[in-house]
Amino acid sequence: MNPRNPSFAEDVARTFAKQPIMNLIGARLSLVEPGVVEITLPYRADLTQQHGYLHAGVVTTIADSACGYAAFTLMPAGSNVLSVEFKVNLLRPAQGVEFVTRAEVIRAGQTLTVVRADVFGIAKNEERELVATMQGTMICLHK
Amino acid sequence: MNPRNPSFAEDVARTFAKQPIMNLIGARLSLVEPGVVEITLPYRADLTQQHGYLHAGVVTTIADSACGYAAFTLMPAGSNVLSVEFKVNLLRPAQGVEFVTRAEVIRAGQTLTVVRADVFGIAKNEERELVATMQGTMICLHK
Amino acid sequence: MNPRNPSFAEDVARTFAKQPIMNLIGARLSLVEPGVVEITLPYRADLTQQHGYLHAGVVTTIADSACGYAAFTLMPAGSNVLSVEFKVNLLRPAQGVEFVTRAEVIRAGQTLTVVRADVFGIAKNEERELVATMQGTMICLHK
Amino acid sequence: MNPRNPSFAEDVARTFAKQPIMNLIGARLSLVEPGVVEITLPYRADLTQQHGYLHAGVVTTIADSACGYAAFTLMPAGSNVLSVEFKVNLLRPAQGVEFVTRAEVIRAGQTLTVVRADVFGIAKNEERELVATMQGTMICLHK
Repeated sequence: MNPRNPSFAEDVARTFAKQPIMNLIGARLSLVEPGVVEITLPYRADLTQQHGYLHAGVVTTIADSACGYAAFTLMPAGSNVLSVEFKVNLLRPAQGVEFVTRAEVIRAGQTLTVVRADVFGIAKNEERELVATMQGTMICLHK
Repeated sequence: MNPRNPSFAEDVARTFAKQPIMNLIGARLSLVEPGVVEITLPYRADLTQQHGYLHAGVVTTIADSACGYAAFTLMPAGSNVLSVEFKVNLLRPAQGVEFVTRAEVIRAGQTLTVVRADVFGIAKNEERELVATMQGTMICLHK
Repeated sequence: MNPRNPSFAEDVARTFAKQPIMNLIGARLSLVEPGVVEITLPYRADLTQQHGYLHAGVVTTIADSACGYAAFTLMPAGSNVLSVEFKVNLLRPAQGVEFVTRAEVIRAGQTLTVVRADVFGIAKNEERELVATMQGTMICLHK
Repeated sequence: MNPRNPSFAEDVARTFAKQPIMNLIGARLSLVEPGVVEITLPYRADLTQQHGYLHAGVVTTIADSACGYAAFTLMPAGSNVLSVEFKVNLLRPAQGVEFVTRAEVIRAGQTLTVVRADVFGIAKNEERELVATMQGTMICLHK
């Protein structure tokens, strides 16, 4: 996929840094390529639900941000991206010392971009297990 | 809808208190009835995305918890509830001094319960605007 | 909701008549109001799956068309409508002598419109039971 | 993925033959492997919407059946499968001389199985284009 914005990587990093929620939960950008973005989130006890697993809303928070930025890498310079909708299937209890979500653009349109994100729990021994998968739609707001 | 667990309200309150993420973001239970749960979240700048709106993942966090607890009110005593999947449509920028999500059970089955949640942004003048809507499936884990 | 196209009802009826699939399965428009459309489908054995219930794809076919037309009633004259995405929860076996789907617009935007549709199975004694519910996004293609 | 039902392929073929809707629209099973099923549907004008593209409901019909059978290949002998929910993103106008949907199991659980299906339009020159993608949940009813 061909980025139309030559400084897409800097622009993703810049707007990621402006998302206070990413700072609150301790998430960081770990990969930015055309149509692909990964976000990494270390486990923290204050991000969990009643059984000690990462809350589905936190799983969604990193997956949604990764989807938005993956879409954004293919948009023209100066665009804004917003989430239209997403669907998440929770496949296993979200456990691990760290979580990584990888979002990939499936279809980049002029206005709408469809993105898929997988979320993996990483165990101490570095084994990764798919814990959730998202399919969502992002919209490009042209300036 | 007829609760099979006479102490459903206490049980919801008790397990809500065990969700560390609710404490982190500052959410509180504001209504618990058979098949209906509301959660209230005051606006905080550290919960936002790059435009200052509540991040879609935080919107989802409170909607998903409300859905889970709404399903839980109708489950037998001693059950556990887990989210199977949900879909969220983001309808307007999530702005307001406070957010309220109201989840209502659409169909309570033996194993699966389908729930809908609306999320409202409340303005200073107390006007409420629908900012997102969730349709999801919860599963009952019988002890 | 205020229709911007004064002849929305005729336009819905005209394009509905141009959907060959509606004719194949025997569906008919049964209500057209601003932001609301109903489609009725009599039971037919050749529309079923292996247990004799209406196939989930047929349930979706009428719900999706109703959502598209409900969105269309609020679009400017001369617009086209396309489905962007939808999510369907199947709540009960789809049985009945007739099925009715009712779609209502939740949020009509300039480009995207979010619609919800319920699908009911109607028994011989005229009792109706909710068998499925759809939440979807429609896009307006301006001519 | 390891099938627990040694005659899964025959069982899929047998129950597919019992879905009258597949006969009505002219769909046929084209691949059955453990966790993977493909269904092929030749274009027919009576399956289209008002622009001559395959109706989204028909796209969904074959994708949903493929998902159900893909899940079924991994279930114990004598099980029944039902669709719990699915979400479909429509990526391009569904055009082609033939359509193929390929469903693959993402996660097979004891009760619930999550499946993804892509739907391709095949042009005269045999080029295939992704027109839709489904993410859904199937439930196993143990006899």
